[in-house]
Amino acid sequence: MEAPVQFKGARDRFSGVTISSEEEPASPQEFEAVLQASMSHWMEENIRGVWFKVDLEHADWVPVLVKHGFIYHHAQPQFVMMVKWLSVNEPNNIPRYAHNVVGVGAFVVNDQDELLVVRERFHTRPHWKLPGGYVEPGEDLGTAALREVKEETGIDAEFVSLVSFRHVHGANYNCSDIYFIVHLRPITQRITMCQRELTACEWMKLQEYVQHPYVHETNRFFAERFLECRRNGVKIQATNIFSPAFRKNQVIYSINSKVEKESINEKAENSSIDTQSLMNGDAKL
Amino acid sequence: MEAPVQFKGARDRFSGVTISSEEEPASPQEFEAVLQASMSHWMEENIRGVWFKVDLEHADWVPVLVKHGFIYHHAQPQFVMMVKWLSVNEPNNIPRYAHNVVGVGAFVVNDQDELLVVRERFHTRPHWKLPGGYVEPGEDLGTAALREVKEETGIDAEFVSLVSFRHVHGANYNCSDIYFIVHLRPITQRITMCQRELTACEWMKLQEYVQHPYVHETNRFFAERFLECRRNGVKIQATNIFSPAFRKNQVIYSINSKVEKESINEKAENSSIDTQSLMNGDAKL
Repeated sequence: MEAPVQFKGARDRFSGVTISSEEEPASPQEFEAVLQASMSHWMEENIRGVWFKVDLEHADWVPVLVKHGFIYHHAQPQFVMMVKWLSVNEPNNIPRYAHNVVGVGAFVVNDQDELLVVRERFHTRPHWKLPGGYVEPGEDLGTAALREVKEETGIDAEFVSLVSFRHVHGANYNCSDIYFIVHLRPITQRITMCQRELTACEWMKLQEYVQHPYVHETNRFFAERFLECRRNGVKIQATNIFSPAFRKNQVIYSINSKVEKESINEKAENSSIDTQSLMNGDAKL
Repeated sequence: MEAPVQFKGARDRFSGVTISSEEEPASPQEFEAVLQASMSHWMEENIRGVWFKVDLEHADWVPVLVKHGFIYHHAQPQFVMMVKWLSVNEPNNIPRYAHNVVGVGAFVVNDQDELLVVRERFHTRPHWKLPGGYVEPGEDLGTAALREVKEETGIDAEFVSLVSFRHVHGANYNCSDIYFIVHLRPITQRITMCQRELTACEWMKLQEYVQHPYVHETNRFFAERFLECRRNGVKIQATNIFSPAFRKNQVIYSINSKVEKESINEKAENSSIDTQSLMNGDAKL
């Protein structure tokens, strides 16, 4: 009888191996034999952890992997990633998958000191909120805010700074939720409201917003913080720095240092990153 | 012939239904018939989206669900969550699962202006880094920093403020990575190094750290920002505010407003949240 073929997989620097069902497909009939032969081999080779990336079309692998002690690690729409820790000498130290949902609220203030505010279609009580939404994979915070403002209100804007952010636990899918408030300066003024998501959208005097009864406590706090920071000439700016560890550019958010200069010349704000570089994800030192 | 039983599930406010395999188990033989009967019923009832939370022990449901058009949404070690959008009138607007990994670096500075620095065991080139690691589910940023410092160095500390944070894409598991730098004040001085993770740990003069050749650009930037913010008396403080939307407490991070007062009296820093409340996740207004 011919010995079953073994999975090749891709090795990583943590003595792990990852098998992709797309790259090494196996029929439901042959999968279990190939798995067993491979596992024996990996044990002999002191592989610490085995990963299976199982595409939708090979979903019949999943119950077999569970039978052999695999558990889930994470999933994307088209695949599930399963893992088994083999080492008996070391505890399983595989980091968890992401469990923080990240969203942005756009704090768009025009030259008349008016804030762009919206009413969402699906809600239980009246409120004036900030346009915004979830950050897409690979998206910077400023880019996400500009995209959401454009989608919901039709307004074009440019990134200025962060105002603040909120962290809360036990939100959607039982994840923690980080919500960044992004200060934008509008380039256009005419509102084209997204009818699907909103029932109202307008420019409201900032001072009115801070006192409005339909503004939730959290948004009132954000607005008060914005006004205080503007008075004091401080902000959370964005700077692009090349990361040798990641071998790519990263955005660093930190308080600007030019306190006095900024407070004197508030209009000529200089964030150290411009809108276009945020939009393109460009390298910029 | 008897009609198959239907799944009951739990309805949500978005006209969705979620079935838990733990709460409504079905054998591999009967699952498909129950699923088909239930789907017909849900179509008639204008259910927009159907979710299946499938535990490890019911993994044989997975290929059947895939056959009926379900895809993966997310997974935890013991279950996979699968979903199918039923509505033909509306596009699928189910938000994605979390794709941001969150970590903390602890910036621990003592009264002699020395920074707590470490060398990690697994690394390719010499470096002096900040103690830190991933934020656990449900953990606040300050709590995570205090825990990591204690685990790695044995030092007890208290939360002061955030210094800044970094956002980069395409990191582990192809997630985006947010790394918050948390300023802590040590309560103890004697180091008990974690041998498993580190090869060195010491108190280093902050001015030496800023110029040290073994400090990566990003950490140097963080240290420079810390010194500048201290000179200017500004910081990113943490405030607990009750969220009516989430019906729970949330931590809001924003720039402190008392610029002049703080710069005069730097030692008497007043973060508006104390260590204990961060550790306990207490309500505190």
